Amino acid sequence: MTVSLDDLPLRDDLRGQQPYGAPQAPLPVALNVNENTHPIPDEVADDIADSVALALRDVNRYPDREFTALREGFAEYLGHGLEPEQIWAANGSNEVLQHLLQAFAGPGRTAFGFAPTYSMYTLLTRGVGATFVSGERGANFSLTPESAAAQVAEARPDVVFLCAPNNPTGTPLENDVVEAVYDATDGIVIVDEAYREFAPRDVPSALQLLPGRPRLVVSRTMSKAFAFAGARVGYLAADPAVVDALRLVRLPYHLSALTQAAASAALRHADTMLAMVDEIVEQRDRISATLEALGYTVYPTWSNFVLFGGVEDPHATWQALYDRGVLIRDIGIPGHLRVTAGTEDETSAFLGALAEIGR
Amino acid sequence: MTVSLDDLPLRDDLRGQQPYGAPQAPLPVALNVNENTHPIPDEVADDIADSVALALRDVNRYPDREFTALREGFAEYLGHGLEPEQIWAANGSNEVLQHLLQAFAGPGRTAFGFAPTYSMYTLLTRGVGATFVSGERGANFSLTPESAAAQVAEARPDVVFLCAPNNPTGTPLENDVVEAVYDATDGIVIVDEAYREFAPRDVPSALQLLPGRPRLVVSRTMSKAFAFAGARVGYLAADPAVVDALRLVRLPYHLSALTQAAASAALRHADTMLAMVDEIVEQRDRISATLEALGYTVYPTWSNFVLFGGVEDPHATWQALYDRGVLIRDIGIPGHLRVTAGTEDETSAFLGALAEIGR
Repeated sequence: MTVSLDDLPLRDDLRGQQPYGAPQAPLPVALNVNENTHPIPDEVADDIADSVALALRDVNRYPDREFTALREGFAEYLGHGLEPEQIWAANGSNEVLQHLLQAFAGPGRTAFGFAPTYSMYTLLTRGVGATFVSGERGANFSLTPESAAAQVAEARPDVVFLCAPNNPTGTPLENDVVEAVYDATDGIVIVDEAYREFAPRDVPSALQLLPGRPRLVVSRTMSKAFAFAGARVGYLAADPAVVDALRLVRLPYHLSALTQAAASAALRHADTMLAMVDEIVEQRDRISATLEALGYTVYPTWSNFVLFGGVEDPHATWQALYDRGVLIRDIGIPGHLRVTAGTEDETSAFLGALAEIGR
Repeated sequence: MTVSLDDLPLRDDLRGQQPYGAPQAPLPVALNVNENTHPIPDEVADDIADSVALALRDVNRYPDREFTALREGFAEYLGHGLEPEQIWAANGSNEVLQHLLQAFAGPGRTAFGFAPTYSMYTLLTRGVGATFVSGERGANFSLTPESAAAQVAEARPDVVFLCAPNNPTGTPLENDVVEAVYDATDGIVIVDEAYREFAPRDVPSALQLLPGRPRLVVSRTMSKAFAFAGARVGYLAADPAVVDALRLVRLPYHLSALTQAAASAALRHADTMLAMVDEIVEQRDRISATLEALGYTVYPTWSNFVLFGGVEDPHATWQALYDRGVLIRDIGIPGHLRVTAGTEDETSAFLGALAEIGR
């Protein structure tokens, strides 16, 4: 009885497209999608499970549409004098970004980012009917305040994405770039700090720039530092007026009572989770040092992953690693591959397999 | 530091809009949003909690993007020979409907429904940049196959919503209308069976019409019969090609591992949950009979709520009930109010308060 997709009255701009998504392969060492490969500690998991069990008692009722307790938790975690009314959350930071684009982009508008950057920016922008415009980076994928501001001023976008640090390159992006870009546009400036917790602690977050900048948005995720990719929780901090705008486009009750309970509980264990971040940073730096010793080009990274170049045949290396049970990511930059920092054992497995394969 | 929403570069079509959502008031008897007011039984809640606790062990990893186990669960629950590849799910049936509109509507296209009907159809349609067109119902909000087909043929929409039974009126809609509408359009026909479990068991679902109708979609929710409004789980059955189309527009990993685990566990207890449905149907019929005895106009309903007319001043009656701790819904139809069937005690509280207020 089945027909083909082409037989259905699909939107014209979707014809011929493929669904987005990294391959989900059940390999012993999966370092391909920048997950936190450390399971959450038992005592944290138990506390979260208890909170969810409590939430199940009222699950017959719609959830708190304003996720009040969770917003209080995020405000406290982020610090910087933030108030709950400056917080928004959704099912993953992708949905947070989608809400922003629904409110501030849409048909006839444009969003802007510096390529190569997180590939979902383009897809999310197209998804709301807006146009994505790519800017350029300098040597080693870096970005100066002058170049970034000049490109944004010329493109006049409605929304700017600044990925800090940048995915898939790991490149640091500091507040001087954010300030310059903010001053160069009348649009919304989104600083995507998905990997922020893996950056040096003494470098200020863009959260510090929020006062007096009502068009600035800082987005985060629990997927990485909080080892919560499976729970789908992204969030942001911004002026309360930005949050008001997002209420106009979110689906009512978009955040389930179970998600709210689980995320609130996890936030209570921020200290434990951030200790895990330190271990990951250690493995990341070990990867960088080893790859450099092996003769690869290694890029500076403030994230939980490492981009490396000087790979003669990325697909062949990717496949050889795959055959040894190690999954990493070919992100489409010629001569490059990307690997997530895993546990100590996973990291050793990757480095050992790579050394075995040889250049 | 805060600014007003008007100071931000908001999309023009959102200016002046208010966020959607029923008031969330903490009243003792809340019968306003058609929730299942019965908490899920303890043994079911315990089993769900265990499943979620298990899922938390891997929550550091992204969830199964294809929610394979959950789709198997829905296929089994729905029966009708359905296969898992015919199933889709999302965070509430609103998101299921949004995915359908993203794939088959969008700018320049139109969606169609028979007013008065579920108000989210209009909002979701606008949200994807499409236009919503309203058709008309006959006496008592009913719809004949001939009238429905003729209106759809004339409007030539890309997507048709048939709410069966209809919200907010409760009106039955049978398969002869679905067949006639399907034959009258080249677009996608969505039969929204959110309240289906409350209809007489011997009346066939639109699921029976799926074979040979690749443009037909039957959507459901766990919010009502499964007392799972807080967990946000909607789903649909359709041709596998329709499901392929939705993969193009969904956010990757849109359904969390916790949601997948909770919903799969709840489905294992379908029999227990459906026994609760029988109790609710009993209370609904009691409401209808009592309201009729009190002299109100009562409409036929196959849902878990009752629409009644002959209310001289709906706002005054709503307020008088509110003052007595009973929250029902003024859905904007002049002279009418809507009440959800609650537990036996809640239903008694409503009927008692209404009798006390008098007409």
